[in-house]
Amino acid sequence: MTAFRTESSDVQWQGRLLRAGQEAHRYEDDSVHIHDKVWHPGAITVVPYDDRHVWLVRQPRPASGLTSCLEIPAGKRDRADEALLDLAKRELAEEIGKEADEWRVVTSFYTTPGFCDEHITLFAATGLRDVDGGATPDDDEYLEVVPWPLEDLAGAIDATVDGKTLIGLLWLARELRRG
Amino acid sequence: MTAFRTESSDVQWQGRLLRAGQEAHRYEDDSVHIHDKVWHPGAITVVPYDDRHVWLVRQPRPASGLTSCLEIPAGKRDRADEALLDLAKRELAEEIGKEADEWRVVTSFYTTPGFCDEHITLFAATGLRDVDGGATPDDDEYLEVVPWPLEDLAGAIDATVDGKTLIGLLWLARELRRG
Repeated sequence: MTAFRTESSDVQWQGRLLRAGQEAHRYEDDSVHIHDKVWHPGAITVVPYDDRHVWLVRQPRPASGLTSCLEIPAGKRDRADEALLDLAKRELAEEIGKEADEWRVVTSFYTTPGFCDEHITLFAATGLRDVDGGATPDDDEYLEVVPWPLEDLAGAIDATVDGKTLIGLLWLARELRRG
Repeated sequence: MTAFRTESSDVQWQGRLLRAGQEAHRYEDDSVHIHDKVWHPGAITVVPYDDRHVWLVRQPRPASGLTSCLEIPAGKRDRADEALLDLAKRELAEEIGKEADEWRVVTSFYTTPGFCDEHITLFAATGLRDVDGGATPDDDEYLEVVPWPLEDLAGAIDATVDGKTLIGLLWLARELRRG
């Protein structure tokens, strides 16, 4: 355990969703180190599965140059006080067109703790039922719903290049002892 | 597959390591969407293990408010053309004080593809030997080397809150069929 104290926190850029800047931290040995920091509102992600499929989406991710990224459903918080389970239910309905009878928190993690405070809570959703009207993605989401066969979970693990999706699918393979 | 064309790419902030700004992308339906983007130089991470242990580090991660984060060894590229395997070898020596006879690329992924181009290549390193002089972390790294028993891999998976480390340890549990 290495204690540090935040000496200054300087937001230098404000985007639509993110802020960026620098923080200075004083450590136990009295030295001060300055680091870049990106502030993020936090997010949830969901592994929705039934007896035959895990329900994935494909979408473009221009920030990382990807025309098609295979992912588990996910969404950002709009407000810091937004309830995570409510957000997870909304994203599952909007992106996949499903609701779920059982929800569990699997784990939570920082996507890239060295420079960003983005924290993701990973849910598992089972007991899936179709929502009336189906998926209703936002205008700026170009989503394709992909029901991926559980018998080829290893294929989905090989096919994704998204960190949170690797975590969700590797967890599911361990949970189900397959893939 | 949803094609888009990058219409503009506007760096609005330059940090020590990162840049941030906004990009506009035109999609097939002719609509244009603007997104925040963070540019990152890329990184490697390593799962080093022998018959008894996986070799981890604990370190403070002030950007995410963590006084102690359990992680697999990792490092950022200093230059875009830096060879990834050379970087992985250097980080294993500096952070853990080991070199390895066998190196494999396990997978590669984007930590958070919705807003950042950070791409991490995950290596496995086996056939470990001590480096003369031991670990030599940088001045601003406060690292503790943690040899974690393979028989309690599940405990390490529970103990970490770092995304890349979850990927590395869940992969190792699957590879070794334990945990």
